[in-house]
Formats: sequence, C-alpha cells, structure tokens
Amino acid sequence: MTFTECLEAHARSVEERFEIWLTPEKLGAVPTRLLSAMRYAALGGGKRLRPFLVIESARLFGIPVEQALDAAVALECVHCYSLVHDDLPAMDDDDMRRGRPTVHKAFNEATAILAGDALLTLAFEIVASPGAHPNPAVRAALALSLAKASGGAGMAGGQMLDLEAPGKILGEADVRMLQKMKTGALITFACEAGGILGETTDSKLAGLRNFGNALGAAFQLADDLLDAEGDAAVVGKATGKDQEAGKATLVSLFGKETAHAKLGELKEEALAALAPFKPNEKMLADATGFVVARKF
Amino acid sequence: MTFTECLEAHARSVEERFEIWLTPEKLGAVPTRLLSAMRYAALGGGKRLRPFLVIESARLFGIPVEQALDAAVALECVHCYSLVHDDLPAMDDDDMRRGRPTVHKAFNEATAILAGDALLTLAFEIVASPGAHPNPAVRAALALSLAKASGGAGMAGGQMLDLEAPGKILGEADVRMLQKMKTGALITFACEAGGILGETTDSKLAGLRNFGNALGAAFQLADDLLDAEGDAAVVGKATGKDQEAGKATLVSLFGKETAHAKLGELKEEALAALAPFKPNEKMLADATGFVVARKF
Repeated sequence: MTFTECLEAHARSVEERFEIWLTPEKLGAVPTRLLSAMRYAALGGGKRLRPFLVIESARLFGIPVEQALDAAVALECVHCYSLVHDDLPAMDDDDMRRGRPTVHKAFNEATAILAGDALLTLAFEIVASPGAHPNPAVRAALALSLAKASGGAGMAGGQMLDLEAPGKILGEADVRMLQKMKTGALITFACEAGGILGETTDSKLAGLRNFGNALGAAFQLADDLLDAEGDAAVVGKATGKDQEAGKATLVSLFGKETAHAKLGELKEEALAALAPFKPNEKMLADATGFVVARKF
Repeated sequence: MTFTECLEAHARSVEERFEIWLTPEKLGAVPTRLLSAMRYAALGGGKRLRPFLVIESARLFGIPVEQALDAAVALECVHCYSLVHDDLPAMDDDDMRRGRPTVHKAFNEATAILAGDALLTLAFEIVASPGAHPNPAVRAALALSLAKASGGAGMAGGQMLDLEAPGKILGEADVRMLQKMKTGALITFACEAGGILGETTDSKLAGLRNFGNALGAAFQLADDLLDAEGDAAVVGKATGKDQEAGKATLVSLFGKETAHAKLGELKEEALAALAPFKPNEKMLADATGFVVARKF
C-alpha cells in the first residue's frame, strides 16, 4: 500500500468512526441544531493527517487500526473545534473553509461557539471512554497529554500569540514558539498517542515526541513556503497572505532559500527520530516526505 | 462548624488551589494575556457551591478535603468557562458579572473565547493529573463523567436550548430538560464526583446522582422564584428578567404557589436520596436547605 492509499484508507476509517460518535445513539440528547453544527464542522473533509499519525504511530507497537481509532477521532475533534473557533469574527474572521461557508456563516456565531465547545468536550469523552483503550491508565494518560497539547500552554496559547502578533516584532525564537504551540503541539500529541496506546517505554515516548516536534515544525515551514511560493489554484486557498498581512514567518525572517534548507534539516531530524522504530516506521517516514514536499 | 462556615472554608481552599493551578509554574508557557484572562474569569468570586458539593460528597467516603480539591477545581473550571462563553455578545451579551465587567469587556472577545477554551481544557488536565487521585481508573472515570455532564448532551446542549427558547412555546417537559442540561448536569456531576473519588458501589453512585438531580432541579426552581419574587437589592442582580423576556420557567407555567410546593417536594426528594449516607450526610442536607431557602 502506498502512503497516499494508506492516508486515504485511514481517513475513511476516521470518517466512519466519527459518523458513529456524532449521533444521538452515542451521545444522548444533543439538541438537533447543535449536533448538526458539530457534524458540519467535523465530517466530510480534510486529509486527516493527525489521525493518520495516531494510527501509524500506534502500529509501531502492534496496535491494530481499530484500537487506535477512538484516540485518532478525539484528536480530530480538537483540531476541528479549533478551526471553528479560529474562524469566528472575533478571531480570524474567515467566511469560507474547505470551499464552503464556515460554521458561524452556515449556522450563526452562538451555534459555532457552542459546537466548538461541545467538540472539545467530546474529545475528552472519547479518550476517557473504555473503547479508547481497555487500560484506564492509558485513557487517563491520553486525556492528560491531549489536554496539555490543546490548552493555554499548547494550541489555545498559540492562537493567542498569533492574534497578538500583528504590530509586534517577532524574532526567530518567537515565531518558533508560536508555531510549536499553535500547530506543533497537536502534531506531537498525535505521534506520542501511538506510544501511549502501545504502553511503551519513556524512552520510546520521548523518541515519538522528537519525531512529532520535527514533523510539526516541518509542516508549518512547508505551509509558510507554500504561502510564499505556491500557486493559489494548486494550493486550494489564497497565497501570499502572510506577506500581505506583514506576518513574520521563518520564510520572511530568513528568505526562501534558507527556509528550504531548514526544511531539509527538519526532514532529516524527523527521519533520525524514527530510527529506533525500524523496520516498521516506513509509513511515518513516507508521511514526513509528504509533509515536506506537499504542494497543497 | 455551621454550613455557612463550611461553605466559606471550602471556598477558600478552592481559591488557594485554583491560585496554584493558574500559574506558569504549574501550566507552563501560557501567554501572559491569556493567563490573566483565565485568572480574571476563575479567581475571586462565587460561592463555589459546586466544589463544595464535590468535597462534601467525597467526605461521605472518608476522602479528606485535600484529596477532593483537584476534582473540585476542575469542575469549577468548567463552570467558569461556561460563564465566560455565555456572556459573549453572540450569546447572552452580558457586560457585567458579579459586579465587574465580563471577560470580553475587560479584555476582548477573542481573548474571552480563548480563555474559556483554555479553562475547559484545563479542567481535563486537572482531573487526568495524578494529583486528582492516585488510581488512574478514578481519573479516567472523572474525565468521562465530567465530559458527559459538560458537553452537547449536558451543559453546552442546555445553553443551545436556552438560546433557541425565545419564540418557542415550551411545556413543562421542555423546561425541565433545558434546566436539567444547562444547570443540573454539573450539579449532578459534583455530587457523583465524591462517589467516584471514594471508589464506591454503583448503587451508592446512583444515590448520589439522585441527590444531585433533585438538588439541581431545586437550585434552578429557587433561582426562578427569586427572579419572580426577589428584591433586586438583596438578590444582587436585576429581578423580573424572565417575565420581561417572556421566558418560560416552571414559575411562569404553574404560578408561584405551585412552584413553592414543588420546591418543597424536591427538597424532600433530595433529603431522601441522602438517607443511605447517614450519619455523615449532615452538611449535604444543610446545603439542600440553603439552596431551597436562599434569598441571594
């Protein structure tokens, strides 16, 4: 199976499991309008890269896809909630996402805020439920690690820094910190989650975090390069936005050439972190190549 | 110790523990502005009734206050986040709370949304951390139960129903469901949490939930009666708001006399649910009396 086939297969499995979670049978009496907004936000889109990383990092330890799916879906709940809240008028004020109206446009602002809140809460319901793992210590560890990655010192804090950035002069360390919190933390959790599910050693967990840190940084740098160099028609969204907004990125700080060189270094760093997991690390290595080379 | 002294003592302990959690030493690199907003939202106010219920329900099983504090603080995180988001312009649009500007007025809307998100996330970090309980199965159970109480089929769903209520004709069953979700679910969790911390039997847990359900319903009915009958100067906030807004409550549906009678019935129901916990249930019985008789 090629990397792309594997990514698509996992995306389908995640979608199916998400479909099951986002029903009254599973969740109880969620008001219809709220459940519709949650489904609109969560279903039918995205490459599902973060769930892929959960599933494939769990496979390093012999965990079957089926057993990693709930943790993968929980992480995707957090990712989807963050998009809903980030798109709000008071935040990034975006009307469109993935080619269709954002949740507050399709429903309204109040519903979007609540749908985000409910998806974030659902993430913890899912990881704390017995289906996530038979060992409750694993479920508690998943909840703790996911909360740290998502909260004030993780993703939510990164969004705060991003909102504060205009008008500030950011250096390399500031940009790295912002990106590590805003997008890196969830990607690192995705990789770590597989090790938590596999009940592996602290040393292997640290290796997975190192891999996730390098991959997350590469993901963001590739994104910045796409914005600086990409063709809007291929990327699927407007490009040149960072420069227009005067936004500091590693590309604006170092120039494209150095940024490409750094991207190569991050790729090597990620692949090196995978070495202890040979010979089962091929899909994660291919994912690294995909993240570094992606054109969309 | 009287009930009021006990309530105040627990409120102080909760405040102290909250102070410790809401620091960079404990949480890591939360951006200053975000941490300030979280502290503004969470510290320095409220009767802390929900944490009181966690602590006192845990004491039924011999759990010392110190061991119940983290679960109590986690629950209060959820309560505080819900107030921040409910106050937003797109939601209830309130400028003042507890005599000072709401978070989006004191900071701004984006910061209020993120502070709410970060407090909700922190709740799960706290219950999943080893300090919440030495047994990871207890931590996972707390996370699961808290998530169910707070999410789409609980508090967040109740807020959705409340936002949809204007213009709808609500009957008794609708009002009960709305109130059970919006305010009852967290109060029921507060009572159940003590049993989870005490690793008690399913039958005792069910008893605690019955107590919480009756107490939560009484709390809301007393609130509606205060709005209908209370003196704004004593209540500490404007009264008569429900009638002005044409809001259906059990008071508007049945009249004050029947509502008072139902409040008496709920008190009896709550006290009856406490019977299996004799002779240690005195503080919770006194809390019931307080909730039913409160004038503020």
